Amino acid sequence: MGCREWGEYMASLPDPIVRLISSLGQLPGIGPRSAERLALFLVQSESGQVKQLAESLLEARERIGFCKICGSLTESQPCGLCSDSRRDAQTLCVVETAVDVINVDKSGAFKGLFHVLGGKISPLNGVEPEDLRITELESRLEGVQEIILALGTDVEGEATSNYLAQRLKDKGVTISRIAHGLPAGSGLEYADDLTLVHALEGRREVQ
Amino acid sequence: MGCREWGEYMASLPDPIVRLISSLGQLPGIGPRSAERLALFLVQSESGQVKQLAESLLEARERIGFCKICGSLTESQPCGLCSDSRRDAQTLCVVETAVDVINVDKSGAFKGLFHVLGGKISPLNGVEPEDLRITELESRLEGVQEIILALGTDVEGEATSNYLAQRLKDKGVTISRIAHGLPAGSGLEYADDLTLVHALEGRREVQ
Repeated sequence: MGCREWGEYMASLPDPIVRLISSLGQLPGIGPRSAERLALFLVQSESGQVKQLAESLLEARERIGFCKICGSLTESQPCGLCSDSRRDAQTLCVVETAVDVINVDKSGAFKGLFHVLGGKISPLNGVEPEDLRITELESRLEGVQEIILALGTDVEGEATSNYLAQRLKDKGVTISRIAHGLPAGSGLEYADDLTLVHALEGRREVQ
Repeated sequence: MGCREWGEYMASLPDPIVRLISSLGQLPGIGPRSAERLALFLVQSESGQVKQLAESLLEARERIGFCKICGSLTESQPCGLCSDSRRDAQTLCVVETAVDVINVDKSGAFKGLFHVLGGKISPLNGVEPEDLRITELESRLEGVQEIILALGTDVEGEATSNYLAQRLKDKGVTISRIAHGLPAGSGLEYADDLTLVHALEGRREVQ
């Protein structure tokens, strides 16, 4: 900050700018400097552009909710994925968050339906199985042939996958997990030990 | 983007999210991926937090204007800098933009008053001297002993500095320019030729 302190500097800015910097600084990936740059840009922008941004913020927050069936982000109930009859209703992909649905869907590699857990089991953070959408998952199993667990590979993700596999094993449904291994385009030199363990365990015979 | 095109992916997101991504993507330093991440964070945030952000946006834009005297960003007329009697009214620092005022002020190295030009002379972009706040500057010269030109070192900044120095030279005011040279904490190996030229030209005898 140079010769003067950040607090003193912020005090020299007009209050509405300070409040805007503080609001923007709460967004993920926006540090104090970016928040300042954005705020100074915005107060000098055309009034119409700022109004449009504020309106799209409020509109998005008001109109977007979670699908009552799968838990993904949607404007309508049920969501576009759940109501799309072209999708394969025999396969459910279980993910942690609503954003994961978007990421898996945009890969184009999965044509079935989704189920968002809303988190992962984490006793340290007070997240128990009953806090997740697991009973909702169990109520959707009619006609389902395969459940693909697409959870993270951290300790909690692994624990959640194991828990679900155990809990669902007698429901007459195939349980699978997405493959863990080297990411596309990456070499061995960048892979950590655990990734290599997964990659070796998950090896497949070359045909 | 993997297997599917960005356009196709965006079409699969609910409209209000797409509009929010597009609004956010118009901000400086926010690319498509950041805009997407922010939008997905915001639609899942607490409603109150989003309202607060929207309100601070609108409030800042409505309440902040340009000081009629110096041209800096302010909530009141005249601004806090112009109305601060502790500042040295005999020295004017001329800068290009209102944000430059903030940057110079926060350095703590200048205790005089400011004057924002609102740009720099750039015939290619249709910016002529009469588009800048130069007559406003000339009307402020009573009691001023020194004008410090703190403009950029690009071609247009240099041309504007030269133009101002020429235009103001017979007004009985000392005209100075801020020093150009090596930035603090930087070594010679990172300096470009022009910076070295400036640094050599601006050398001072060691006392």
